Amino acid sequence: MEMRTVNSMNYEQFLDVFGNVIEKCPLIAAAVWTGRPFSSVSALEKNIGDFIDSLPRSGKEGILRCHPDLAGRELLRGTLSPDSQGEQSRAGLTSLTPAQRSQLSELNASYKSRFNFPFVICVRMNDRETIIQQLGSRISNSPEQELQIGIQEVKKICHLRLLDISSQVSQATKL
Amino acid sequence: MEMRTVNSMNYEQFLDVFGNVIEKCPLIAAAVWTGRPFSSVSALEKNIGDFIDSLPRSGKEGILRCHPDLAGRELLRGTLSPDSQGEQSRAGLTSLTPAQRSQLSELNASYKSRFNFPFVICVRMNDRETIIQQLGSRISNSPEQELQIGIQEVKKICHLRLLDISSQVSQATKL
Repeated sequence: MEMRTVNSMNYEQFLDVFGNVIEKCPLIAAAVWTGRPFSSVSALEKNIGDFIDSLPRSGKEGILRCHPDLAGRELLRGTLSPDSQGEQSRAGLTSLTPAQRSQLSELNASYKSRFNFPFVICVRMNDRETIIQQLGSRISNSPEQELQIGIQEVKKICHLRLLDISSQVSQATKL
Repeated sequence: MEMRTVNSMNYEQFLDVFGNVIEKCPLIAAAVWTGRPFSSVSALEKNIGDFIDSLPRSGKEGILRCHPDLAGRELLRGTLSPDSQGEQSRAGLTSLTPAQRSQLSELNASYKSRFNFPFVICVRMNDRETIIQQLGSRISNSPEQELQIGIQEVKKICHLRLLDISSQVSQATKL
């Protein structure tokens, strides 16, 4: 990515491009814009990670709660963010067998009832089988562990979204 | 509002209802849900205010940057949140004279260029004349003053949105 392009964006342009690198939390992109100029995409990513880490526990839980269920009501209603829609679809979550869908739905409900936030995993680094397996396994963790793992997954999702945007901005710059 | 109704909501129901009391920052409602049960609407409002106050300066700037311009591009594009659309419309910002629209547009641009966040004011406590007058006057403040005033206005907007929701929840409970 041409960082010159990124660093020359006003906050509205920056939000148009980076507003959803943390799902449904444009506040975070809007906050890190204050830290511009960024020397690299990694520097931008580090600013985002640092901002998340600086939040109180409730804020980190809030980030997780802004994430949709996997193969959940928003997928069914068609109200997922375009980012999530693409990610869940590529992971095969739009073409589950009825048995898988029912298993995932029950596990999601148990997970949310236990932790009070949804199961978050970087689906692009997994397929539907490993996602269901991970959900079944992580549900036995402590709330503290799951908060940490969930936030790590949020950062992986952010990393891949930033990479996508980087390559798009690079292409646009070459045009 | 029946606080029993609010306190019995899971985080998804809570986000459906309160997710936009701070414009485009569902993260904040999702975070304060951790602090339930709330003894009153005022207690919920205080939790929201405390969360905002706990954010670093960049986070407060981020909240302001999630707000649309008054009579700006989102109003023209029809992409305002339903809350903002109603508020800007009731304040007369959808029926400006060409001269007022051009004046507001120039003042907004100057304000953003000076402060790096948009001019935020609780439009329901003002009309289009006082909004333009306030914008013209506040632009001379220091960045520190404007950050503080902007966040105070965010809290006023939140207060009125909470009141609206309260009366809706009360009515729904009576049905």
